Amino acid sequence: MRKGRLEQLIRESGYDAVVATSLANVYYSSGALIMTQASIPDRLASVVWPARGDPVFVVCSIEASLAQRDSWIKDVRTYEEFATSPVALIADVLSKLAPAPRQVGVETRHLTAHYMDELRRTLPSVQLTACESLFDRARAVKEPEEVSRLASAAQATDKAIWESFATATPGRRERDVAADFQRRLLDSGPDMVAFCVLGSGENTALAHPYASDRVMKSGDLLRVDVGGSFQGYYSDLARTMVVGKASDRQRDVYSRLWEVHEQTIDAIRPGVRASDLYHVCAAGFERARLSFKMPHIGHSLGIGLHESPMLKPQDNTELVPGMVLAVEPLHFEPSGERYHVEDLIEVTATGHRIVSRAGKWDTLFETN
Amino acid sequence: MRKGRLEQLIRESGYDAVVATSLANVYYSSGALIMTQASIPDRLASVVWPARGDPVFVVCSIEASLAQRDSWIKDVRTYEEFATSPVALIADVLSKLAPAPRQVGVETRHLTAHYMDELRRTLPSVQLTACESLFDRARAVKEPEEVSRLASAAQATDKAIWESFATATPGRRERDVAADFQRRLLDSGPDMVAFCVLGSGENTALAHPYASDRVMKSGDLLRVDVGGSFQGYYSDLARTMVVGKASDRQRDVYSRLWEVHEQTIDAIRPGVRASDLYHVCAAGFERARLSFKMPHIGHSLGIGLHESPMLKPQDNTELVPGMVLAVEPLHFEPSGERYHVEDLIEVTATGHRIVSRAGKWDTLFETN
Repeated sequence: MRKGRLEQLIRESGYDAVVATSLANVYYSSGALIMTQASIPDRLASVVWPARGDPVFVVCSIEASLAQRDSWIKDVRTYEEFATSPVALIADVLSKLAPAPRQVGVETRHLTAHYMDELRRTLPSVQLTACESLFDRARAVKEPEEVSRLASAAQATDKAIWESFATATPGRRERDVAADFQRRLLDSGPDMVAFCVLGSGENTALAHPYASDRVMKSGDLLRVDVGGSFQGYYSDLARTMVVGKASDRQRDVYSRLWEVHEQTIDAIRPGVRASDLYHVCAAGFERARLSFKMPHIGHSLGIGLHESPMLKPQDNTELVPGMVLAVEPLHFEPSGERYHVEDLIEVTATGHRIVSRAGKWDTLFETN
Repeated sequence: MRKGRLEQLIRESGYDAVVATSLANVYYSSGALIMTQASIPDRLASVVWPARGDPVFVVCSIEASLAQRDSWIKDVRTYEEFATSPVALIADVLSKLAPAPRQVGVETRHLTAHYMDELRRTLPSVQLTACESLFDRARAVKEPEEVSRLASAAQATDKAIWESFATATPGRRERDVAADFQRRLLDSGPDMVAFCVLGSGENTALAHPYASDRVMKSGDLLRVDVGGSFQGYYSDLARTMVVGKASDRQRDVYSRLWEVHEQTIDAIRPGVRASDLYHVCAAGFERARLSFKMPHIGHSLGIGLHESPMLKPQDNTELVPGMVLAVEPLHFEPSGERYHVEDLIEVTATGHRIVSRAGKWDTLFETN
């Protein structure tokens, strides 16, 4: 259970208490998904978790009923928006802990300067330091139930991509395919379509475009990078196809990229480091004469989109069973057009398991 | 033009430069909508705008092509993710301004403590203070093109609600109606469905639930609070209906709420203060014997969801033509169930214009 993992890490951390404030870490530690934490960031929600004693859930009064229904934390305290500062309530909870806390961990990469300055002023004798790495470590290894949510989210998303790609025929607009994909994804019962990046032709040169009114023609590259939110867990998959009929060069580039992709995935097993996978991928690109310019070649996936470990040269985390990795190599043509594939892989006791393939992606998809 | 409004406010502000970092303010000042600013917050994008001289657009290298295509700002500078800190680049741009800046405005309610501390360390002689109110003032009054985007987004959203409500018959699940609404909204060509709050029966006691598997029965209250993103501009509308056949009490409560809603909207005209509307609404609730417990009764809408002015007792901003207000009164039944309606209103030279009504909402919607 998520609660148990976190509880142990907090006890071992040396902190007297940690304070979660981001949507992901509040959801992870409380079990309650408060969507307005993202859309209305001033309206803070927070879990104050002492090393000894029970956690307290701080929410805006408007969210109290949801917090009480969905969280296992019994002690829910509320503030009135605009009348009281959420930080005043967090500070009040901290200051009443016994013994008085001296070292408190906060999310310095989430808490804003405004709220952090207020917390520092209110608790001048408490040392406030960054504790994200504690949450990162807890979230990096998924419970079986989390893996199963992520796997079924990935399957549903891949199926929706596969089916909507069949509708990407010459004469249709980018926007039509994006809407078709989203409709199909909605059939699988996500909370939301979380993001829908789609570009064709010259628009594949953009990293994160929304679908446009561009009318597609035969031979256009089409790339998607899409995801849904399923009970707060992300799917995140990228696929590339050709509208109408592909050229021999397009088929060749895709098949070389796919081969490197498979080689990188093959290297996934316990004990390998995140940075190793980066280097395996980079070496594969060189052998395949593809253009490699990625700061990372993938990331963990969960409640967050880019979770730890990141598949980058600076991250030497050793893989362990229960990690769930999105591997996403990208090749740029001299024109700027990009080929992009992304799969989701569970690290298992003996190696790995690809959980994201509902379609058959080993050859380039065409709608000839 | 948005650029002109902001340029003037910066020149008058006394700041030597202001630094936008939030998705909304970077989009407002640059014209480029970088969606990963929300989903990957460490990957900062920023506009550094000097009081004298041209602005600089700082983005992660992966977003350079989109920034160059969509922004009117010519000077786009990039940092490499994980290799260089975005704050180092922002500080570098600031430190090379001539004359050297002493007062710099930053978004203290967006910039995280981590990045703010780095900026303070890097520029110890620069005074960094909160400049959100400057952006708030610029964005509070919309250009005609912005009003027209918001109005057509609201129309499309209201139409999708109206049509999906007709499908909310006894025996269907909440999730079916939510998916139906989202499919219809996608037909109108938004970038995304931004949020979709839906609850029926006892779930209307929750402020922001996702639709569940709950099977609805005749007499259930059903409430939605939904919105899309249209070229970065939000729609945001709330509506309440009864599944199947309503009771006399439900019709009566709804019609009293609707009357107060209309009275509040009728009070909208230039010169009236945001707080006045709050008090008009509160007085209407008392006359109609409805339960009033809202910290605010609405908000401005634009690139942000809750923009300034907010319709709350603490906000004495005078309304001026070009403001666009979401008015959203809420009544709670003793059971906790809530009735909620929300419309979008443009402040015009002579009064106001309701821009959100595609359906006929003056009587309670039933699917009898």
